[in-house]
Amino acid sequence: MVLGALPGFRDFYPAELAERTHIFATWREVARRFGFVEYDGPPLEPLELYTKKSGDEIVGQLYNFVDKGDREVALRPEMTPTLARMVAARANALRKPVRWFSIPQLFRYERQQRGRLREHFQLNMDIVGESDVTADAELLVGAIEIMRLLGLGPDDVRARVSDRRILHGYLLAAGVPDAAFGAVLAVVDKIDRQPRNVSEDKLRTLGLDADAVRAVMAIPECTTLEGMQSLHVRGSEEVVREFSRFASYVEALGGGAYLQPDLSIVRGLAYYTGIVFELFDAKGELRAICGGGRYDTLLKQSWGPDLPALGFGMGDVVLGELLRARAILPAAPPGVDVWVAFGDGATVEDAMRVTSRLRARGISVEYALGGQQLSRQLKAAAAAGARDAVILGAPNAGLGEAMVRRLGDSQDGSKERRVLLDDWIGTLGSPGATRSSTHS
Amino acid sequence: MVLGALPGFRDFYPAELAERTHIFATWREVARRFGFVEYDGPPLEPLELYTKKSGDEIVGQLYNFVDKGDREVALRPEMTPTLARMVAARANALRKPVRWFSIPQLFRYERQQRGRLREHFQLNMDIVGESDVTADAELLVGAIEIMRLLGLGPDDVRARVSDRRILHGYLLAAGVPDAAFGAVLAVVDKIDRQPRNVSEDKLRTLGLDADAVRAVMAIPECTTLEGMQSLHVRGSEEVVREFSRFASYVEALGGGAYLQPDLSIVRGLAYYTGIVFELFDAKGELRAICGGGRYDTLLKQSWGPDLPALGFGMGDVVLGELLRARAILPAAPPGVDVWVAFGDGATVEDAMRVTSRLRARGISVEYALGGQQLSRQLKAAAAAGARDAVILGAPNAGLGEAMVRRLGDSQDGSKERRVLLDDWIGTLGSPGATRSSTHS
Repeated sequence: MVLGALPGFRDFYPAELAERTHIFATWREVARRFGFVEYDGPPLEPLELYTKKSGDEIVGQLYNFVDKGDREVALRPEMTPTLARMVAARANALRKPVRWFSIPQLFRYERQQRGRLREHFQLNMDIVGESDVTADAELLVGAIEIMRLLGLGPDDVRARVSDRRILHGYLLAAGVPDAAFGAVLAVVDKIDRQPRNVSEDKLRTLGLDADAVRAVMAIPECTTLEGMQSLHVRGSEEVVREFSRFASYVEALGGGAYLQPDLSIVRGLAYYTGIVFELFDAKGELRAICGGGRYDTLLKQSWGPDLPALGFGMGDVVLGELLRARAILPAAPPGVDVWVAFGDGATVEDAMRVTSRLRARGISVEYALGGQQLSRQLKAAAAAGARDAVILGAPNAGLGEAMVRRLGDSQDGSKERRVLLDDWIGTLGSPGATRSSTHS
Repeated sequence: MVLGALPGFRDFYPAELAERTHIFATWREVARRFGFVEYDGPPLEPLELYTKKSGDEIVGQLYNFVDKGDREVALRPEMTPTLARMVAARANALRKPVRWFSIPQLFRYERQQRGRLREHFQLNMDIVGESDVTADAELLVGAIEIMRLLGLGPDDVRARVSDRRILHGYLLAAGVPDAAFGAVLAVVDKIDRQPRNVSEDKLRTLGLDADAVRAVMAIPECTTLEGMQSLHVRGSEEVVREFSRFASYVEALGGGAYLQPDLSIVRGLAYYTGIVFELFDAKGELRAICGGGRYDTLLKQSWGPDLPALGFGMGDVVLGELLRARAILPAAPPGVDVWVAFGDGATVEDAMRVTSRLRARGISVEYALGGQQLSRQLKAAAAAGARDAVILGAPNAGLGEAMVRRLGDSQDGSKERRVLLDDWIGTLGSPGATRSSTHS
């Protein structure tokens, strides 16, 4: 009887962990290029951290409990409250704009459906302390460059972008009353996924006249910059000009090919105040890869500092599905560089001494821990995915000599060659290597 | 009012996260050199996973609760049960010996004392499926090489090693009854930390005669290989020969200078069956850096597969304290490589285009998101820890030219030089860089 993991939780065997490592390493690499520094917070937080912002209804989706010190606590369902808490605690000391990223594991107790998970890892990149749309462009292009570095081009992924304030101005101009704004946004969010007449009925129920209904139903058709620029927006003309500036910044930063203005992007969360965006697979088969935007009032409303902010979350699950479908994820962890084998003329201690010298040069090495026939050692070397086997104490090898066999490369005619051991080691890696090839 | 993290939980601001990254990267680098592959399991597991092996008394130290699906669950307090569960589920399919490592965050609800934390990260390295002491040597030297790569030499850290079976044979030969073995080990574990007469009294209470008490009290004096070899051990003579073989393997693998046989090493957990070890700071001021050993019967007793196994856990907290005391931790996350500044003759979009080209070559770049005076931009560049500032549109720069200023290197007389922008970019990084300098 073998217990499994809890439903909705993943075991990462080495093959799956290698996929995760590939995604994390790409996230970190792009964050580094963009000058973002990594932070982290506790996976367990006071429950109040989440109820304060989202109200008590979020509790139904949390892994929350009372700890042994009678504290109400919860596994973190999102990272932004932790970010807000940490920034608030040092708001004055931090260099602005803050460019921070983190890769937390997040937890939600959701009804299990369609293999939906209850945990995932999510890259969070946030900029705090800059109100200009240059920051919005910088952040979005960060997300786009992750796609590019993973091998996903503009034909694979689209960055759909809108601005909450433009949408607001458009609805106002169309005669939608301010009070109905939230409810209308909820309908807009579903226009693509429900029959046209259902959406129209809902809008009429909200008190919209025929013109207003027509205007709302036209929102998903606004998918170009020119379309955004020609919208009739009441009181949001300056915002439209800012949006155009934003689009040209995205272009200058190299992300233009991915950009797709789309007035229908709403984002579920209520706290966005400006430009919002989502990254989608171009075929539209998957859920969003990434979502984010500007939330200028959140920090002030939650923990105090009146700092403009923007950020996005990008999970590992949908992204992994897309990369797997495109066959651009590593299939397995890499094998070792070298297998040290030993024949009758050498001992396991000889193998260990060579192993130690190789590892000190940054080379990854395995050898047969238990004593084995040479032929079995070489089979083990192939099974381990070793690139080369070096054979000590082979029948025809002289003093200080060894045979080096290239494994897993059958095209190579000269599979085995005799080497002077010291010379051969000297050609590999570098002495006293520190972290020449960190792979994480 | 700013909420803090829960007591015993850490916020990792970028400076602390950089320390953690340094430790994690070194762990991963040594694991890679030793041919270990990374795995991970869920931080939340069925409670039964822990009560099965350790009994119900462990529950007092767990973060356990009932989830919304009425499951008894717990935040993982250790990784070995998850490892055992995962190996058991694929025992036949896995290549042996299994060389796996993981860096889980672990949780224990301990009474808060001396700043004791309730979470920590712990490297777990395990070998499953090899009974020979070559594996014990390989594993211990893995731990030792982590010390070396972190900059901790044999004068900084000692690897104290014993063998449960030698200790058993020694106690038997000294006349300690088998039934008192566990209780006597508990006394041995504390000999260093309590007055001599307290230990002696306890041993007498356990029914030991004067000779047996003397023999037990002499255990901490056995701290050399010769001492171990000359012990009077009943029925464990073969084990002593194995221990000598183990010691010569540690030497062959390059770890000999750190090795310190020490019969008094007991290890708290009951499940060890052979060689056990602990890494300590040489001054003996801190708790153990690392502890582990062979647990050949655990897998069979827990989830089924009859596979010998051994492993160690190395936490980030004590190790971090030692590295900080030696001042061999990075003080802060690295600054960006290049700051792109722009004077009156250039725009932020010019800066963005240069930024984009540099980042595509793997260079980390920041620039002023909001418009700023050039002098303020250069101050910001210095504050960001940038190595170089490249200045576009400077008064005397011609078409396609820029000024490059070396920052934070006041010894350099020629601080600023004129460059052809294209040529200069060509000297940096590499085009289409993928992950030339992943830092994690």
